[in-house]
Amino acid sequence: MNKPYVVGIDIGGTNTVFGIVDARGVVIASSSIKTQQYADVNEYIDELYKAIMRLLEAHNAVDKIHGIGIGAPNANYYTGMIEKLVNIPWPTPLPLAQMVSEKFGIPVAITNDANAAAIGEMTYGAARGLKNFIMITLGTGVGSGIVINGQVVYGHDGFAGELGHVIMKRNNGRLCGCGRTGCLEAYCSASGVARTAREFLEIRNDDSKLRDIPLDQITSKDVYDAAIAGDPLAKEIFQFTGNMLGEAFADFTVFSSPEAIILFGGLAKSGELLMKPIRESMERNMFPAFKGKVKILPSELKEADAAILGASALGWEAKFPTPATQPAVAPAASAE
Amino acid sequence: MNKPYVVGIDIGGTNTVFGIVDARGVVIASSSIKTQQYADVNEYIDELYKAIMRLLEAHNAVDKIHGIGIGAPNANYYTGMIEKLVNIPWPTPLPLAQMVSEKFGIPVAITNDANAAAIGEMTYGAARGLKNFIMITLGTGVGSGIVINGQVVYGHDGFAGELGHVIMKRNNGRLCGCGRTGCLEAYCSASGVARTAREFLEIRNDDSKLRDIPLDQITSKDVYDAAIAGDPLAKEIFQFTGNMLGEAFADFTVFSSPEAIILFGGLAKSGELLMKPIRESMERNMFPAFKGKVKILPSELKEADAAILGASALGWEAKFPTPATQPAVAPAASAE
Repeated sequence: MNKPYVVGIDIGGTNTVFGIVDARGVVIASSSIKTQQYADVNEYIDELYKAIMRLLEAHNAVDKIHGIGIGAPNANYYTGMIEKLVNIPWPTPLPLAQMVSEKFGIPVAITNDANAAAIGEMTYGAARGLKNFIMITLGTGVGSGIVINGQVVYGHDGFAGELGHVIMKRNNGRLCGCGRTGCLEAYCSASGVARTAREFLEIRNDDSKLRDIPLDQITSKDVYDAAIAGDPLAKEIFQFTGNMLGEAFADFTVFSSPEAIILFGGLAKSGELLMKPIRESMERNMFPAFKGKVKILPSELKEADAAILGASALGWEAKFPTPATQPAVAPAASAE
Repeated sequence: MNKPYVVGIDIGGTNTVFGIVDARGVVIASSSIKTQQYADVNEYIDELYKAIMRLLEAHNAVDKIHGIGIGAPNANYYTGMIEKLVNIPWPTPLPLAQMVSEKFGIPVAITNDANAAAIGEMTYGAARGLKNFIMITLGTGVGSGIVINGQVVYGHDGFAGELGHVIMKRNNGRLCGCGRTGCLEAYCSASGVARTAREFLEIRNDDSKLRDIPLDQITSKDVYDAAIAGDPLAKEIFQFTGNMLGEAFADFTVFSSPEAIILFGGLAKSGELLMKPIRESMERNMFPAFKGKVKILPSELKEADAAILGASALGWEAKFPTPATQPAVAPAASAE
């Protein structure tokens, strides 16, 4: 490999973080810019270019980048487009891979953050050596990246792996951000856990430390703190959440028979409080042929680096978007 | 391709059917033996060998077989083993691929019948040209074969694709043959449809032609006949069945984003009676990003040939099980 580094870029609604990463998953250097500060996407890319070039120059890495990987919401691996943006005023569909590739003259691949996390985990983390696993990100939403035979599942249109949106409650389910009701995400995301807390507190009368917090301000972190402090109602909320995740994971298993399901994100750091009910529920609900076969593992990527690492891992397989979109001046030959 | 034919063998509980198939999916010749007649699996393989050799000799095809594909219940593609047998008294796990390969001196691959159906459909049928689709077999049970990036999904252990066993009803669900409750198969298989009929007839009081049949003898065919004749209750049973299949298909779509879901088996021949409620329910329950993208297609394999075609298609990719299991006398070189 004559180019020893990749660049990972994670585009979030607030910040865009990026870094230079080597083949062993060491983040050589990283920095960030404010995503929302740039009303014009060309300005944003100019600033991103300058900031990354500063980083590359400072680390003598300008000619050493194999590829650039980008994790972004609603990013389509096949087309290199961002199909939809929320809270960012750029026009969509946005040919981001092409734009960044033309700016840098380096191959670029993009995908959504959960798929990037799966590739990061496979390249540098808990999924090293695994060919069949499912990455579940438990954050504001519930995201997923599915790996089968060592490849991320993109589906026929590039948008496969929306496991936060399987229906777990078909009647009287909670309204989900997607407009439907009963989705896994409406229950088992960080905000889903807070909703469960509000529901339990409203319906029930038992004591709980959580009653000291205004109902509309309770977060999943509050529930975690209360559960760790021994609060029975808070522990029940984790039991409820883990139970539903276990039911969902049993269903996922009959689909792709993964060797492991890897959990990432704020909630995944709850440890046995969440892991134990997940494992118990998954086994209790498991199709007999798969009982005892599927491991539940926490992510092994440090949270501070995970977004950059995940995106960067995609850089190793990046190609120039398509020959047709390739500017004549881009140093394609030198990138091979 | 110097060997123009494959042999497909479908092992059922009652009959084993087999045939010689060419690259365009024409069944050159076929025959069958009784599976259960052979208490000893070696006797069975001897008889299978004789019967297939007679067929090959009669069609001057002895040296023209590229590979043998076998569809069998609980067959593991990775190991070549049948892991479990019901109603057939052979010892399990049974290294069937190895045994048949040694007998014939030809590469053999095995998989379960639903995966074989998916490969058959991709090679010769409705899924030609599709890289991402799901095959659903609606027979005594509900089976599935999932294709992603042109490859059947076997999972880490060879048993992926048991979509008949996702849980559709988490409370008070029907008992399923797998020992759990609420599985798709308990509702949407042929026997599931008959169960729905019995439930409706017991709970409700409205007239139906189905009341002329003793409750414990109603079959899905009876329900079909009554629905075609305009019986409202029978039509509602198809509505109920299609509705649940559509809900399940919407969930499958967030997993692998298939281009099409292909239906095979007795129930799949119900036409619009089942297709219409499936499509309507699938779209109604679909995650927004996938609305209008997934086709529901009937199998294009003739039912009489489908089992042989499905199994035979696997023969094109068959390899000798492993070098270690290869007998010294087998004409490996000539099979290349």
